[in-house]
Formats: sequence, C-alpha cells, structure tokens
Amino acid sequence: MELKVIAYAQNGHTDKFGIPRQSREESPIMTRIVFEPEFRIPEALRGIEGYSHLWLLWGFSEVPNNPEQRAKEGLSWSPTVRPPRLGGNKRMGVFATRSPFRPNPIGLSSVKLVGIEDGDLIVSGADVLDGTPIYDIKPYLSFSDSHPEAKNGFAEETKNRTLEVEVLPALDQHLTSTKPAQHLVSEICYILSQDPRPAYQDDPEREYKMDYAGYRVTFVVADGKVVVKKIEKI
Amino acid sequence: MELKVIAYAQNGHTDKFGIPRQSREESPIMTRIVFEPEFRIPEALRGIEGYSHLWLLWGFSEVPNNPEQRAKEGLSWSPTVRPPRLGGNKRMGVFATRSPFRPNPIGLSSVKLVGIEDGDLIVSGADVLDGTPIYDIKPYLSFSDSHPEAKNGFAEETKNRTLEVEVLPALDQHLTSTKPAQHLVSEICYILSQDPRPAYQDDPEREYKMDYAGYRVTFVVADGKVVVKKIEKI
Repeated sequence: MELKVIAYAQNGHTDKFGIPRQSREESPIMTRIVFEPEFRIPEALRGIEGYSHLWLLWGFSEVPNNPEQRAKEGLSWSPTVRPPRLGGNKRMGVFATRSPFRPNPIGLSSVKLVGIEDGDLIVSGADVLDGTPIYDIKPYLSFSDSHPEAKNGFAEETKNRTLEVEVLPALDQHLTSTKPAQHLVSEICYILSQDPRPAYQDDPEREYKMDYAGYRVTFVVADGKVVVKKIEKI
Repeated sequence: MELKVIAYAQNGHTDKFGIPRQSREESPIMTRIVFEPEFRIPEALRGIEGYSHLWLLWGFSEVPNNPEQRAKEGLSWSPTVRPPRLGGNKRMGVFATRSPFRPNPIGLSSVKLVGIEDGDLIVSGADVLDGTPIYDIKPYLSFSDSHPEAKNGFAEETKNRTLEVEVLPALDQHLTSTKPAQHLVSEICYILSQDPRPAYQDDPEREYKMDYAGYRVTFVVADGKVVVKKIEKI
C-alpha cells in the first residue's frame, strides 16, 4: 500500500533529543496538525469536537520512507532491537517494542484534542518531531481502545520513572516575564522530567544541550535530579 | 511511504457481513496472524508474551491498495461519510470516524494476545476479514494508550447496543456435540449480539444469511432479539 501524507506536525521539537519516548496524557506539549491542501477540508473534521482524544498515525522522521534508501543508510528493520528503556543493552523482538526500526516505520500516538484553529487541529501529548508526516487521524474510542489493566511487558518497570527538575531561579524569573514563556518553561520541565538522556548515560558532570521551540536548554542530571543551567534564544 | 505486508489474518470471517464494527475486549473471535516468510522470525517476537494486548495495523480489504484503482471503482475517500452507527443517514467528517473510506485506508485494532503457535500469533477480538493484510504489530502500552474516560463523540450513544441471541435448541444440541463446535456457537452468538445488519434495516420478517468459519447461519431479528434458524455446513 502506498501512503499519502495528509498533514504535517508543527511543534517545538525541532531537535530529536528531548522527544518523549511515548505519548502521555499529562504532557503539556502542544502540536499543531497542519493539513496538506488536498486534505484541508473543514467538513472532513465534522463531529471531531465530540471526541476528547485522537489517534495519530505518522512516519518516523529518522527513518527514510523508501526501503532501498533505508537499506543504504543502514536503517533497515532488524528482528531484534535494544529498547532505551532497558538501558540499551538488552535485545527485544521488534514487534514487542515501539521502535522506529520496524518493517513499516509507522508510529502510533494517542493525543488529546485541544481545539480546531483555522482548519488545523491543536493536540497535546504527541511524541513527534516538528515536521513529522501524518498519514491518518482517527477518533479514540474508549470502548474498544482502552485497556487500563493491560500487562505492559518489559515496559512496566520503567513506565513511571520521572525526574525532579529544578530551573535556577534567575532563569525562571527572566523567562516567565512574558506569558508564552511561562508555558514554555512548563513544557521544558515536562520534557526534562521524562529523562531524555540516552539510557546508558549517567555522568553527573556531563552538560546536555537540547533545542526546543527556538531555545537552547543546557542541563545536568545528578542524583536523579535535573538542574537547568541555561535557557538561551537560538 | 510504501507499506509491505508482514502477515495475513486468518479467521472465520470469510464474509464481510458479520465483522464487528470495532474490536472489543470481550470478543471470543480468534484470529491467527500468519507471518510472511520474510518476517517469520521467532526472535522478532521476543518479549511479546509479556504483553496482554497488541495493536494491529491493517489494510481494509474492501478498499484497493492503489489510489488509481480506488478512484476507478468509486472507492476513493470523501470528506464526509455516513457511519452505520448513526443509521446511515447522517454525515460525519471522515477523520471523526473509523470508516474504511479514508485517505489512507489503514485500520487500527487492539486485540488480546492469546498465544504463539508455530511462529504465528493467536489473538482474540480482531474486527477483520479473513485474509486481511497486516502491516504492523505493536505492544499495547496501558500508560500511553489507555484513556478510559475519553469522550466518544457520536459513538457514545450506541456503544453498548447489543442484542439477545437465541439459538433454536435442536440446532444448539446438534452443534455442541463436538468440542470445536461449542466454541463456534459462542463465536456466532457473539457476532449476532453485535447486530451485523445494515443499520437502516429493521424488518422482522427478513431472513439474513451470514457465512462464518465454513458454516452458513440463517437468522431473523425481531423485537431486539436475534433468532438463529439454521446453521449449515457450506
């Protein structure tokens, strides 16, 4: 089957580093779903406002669309992958993971519908890079899609691991002086609480840099706590 | 993006008539996911047994893969569709429905993982036709995929509409004399309880015929009750 891009995601995740590993209900990260001209039809969204959650089917940006290109770049699928959740040193079957390096690199995320604006959808909680191609949008149906008691395999242990985040007071004050920046700080704190470091790194001295929504964030992680040292406009 | 078929679904739904409109946790319908040779690799399933539920991404069999072919057969997508749940006479935006007639005809179903048999996955609850192409299999993650409180839009009202099913005693006795047939009767009863009739039909005289797992089932629906009149081997 050949898929057509129906829309692109627009958000602050211009950098792969920092994208949450899964969509989360509590995520404050806003994403704008901008339809391609052919699919930019208000009637196609009729009734969508009655749903609180939607599914996005999307393409992993780090994986080329074309199978030959994937093979050339060494990004083909492999039967086993090393999930970051497991420290990056244990192998699991690709179908037991949400890894991008799968036979058909399609991602699946449930998001909250925040609103419709000028024909675009505004959603929160999407774990996707800015510019991600979207292939389908479906309503979330609690009676068929929701299984709160589902067993989460190896993902169970690490599902609630979050870090405390401290933003140095001077920085905080500087940034929250304007309203958009307030939301920006809460977005940055949320992303950092999810621990964006590669799973096998744990060096308290190491300074990390993450670009988000036009800012470069510098932080360290020590004793299970993130300390934000700098937030600069890029 | 071009999708490759990784597996095909095998189940009793040889007939489109009778396929539940959504996957349901309580469904007893078993489906075997038979991998294509290229993807039939035991390691690709390593760790999957730790999950109770999976996602299937699949192709709607009634819709041709090729966009030109879809256009030729009048099966292209349209911005609005008439969901069977609403009696087939109200139009909703295609992205507010799970209709097959969407820009990229990919279906999404959560299923229960029942087991692994000879390298195949056995799942229950898939709302797919026998022979449906499968494009991806992902683990279900309760912490990101489950939203029991989600608002179901126009699907809310009709989500729990099921019918009582009566199988005439003589039939029941005949069929349950062997063990596989026992499960078959419960599968047939489940399917009929979901009311497979086109939503705009409500004629108590009308006899419906549904083929399932090598049997032809004849039934009528009167006063909100399904009466099974015949179950014959095809």
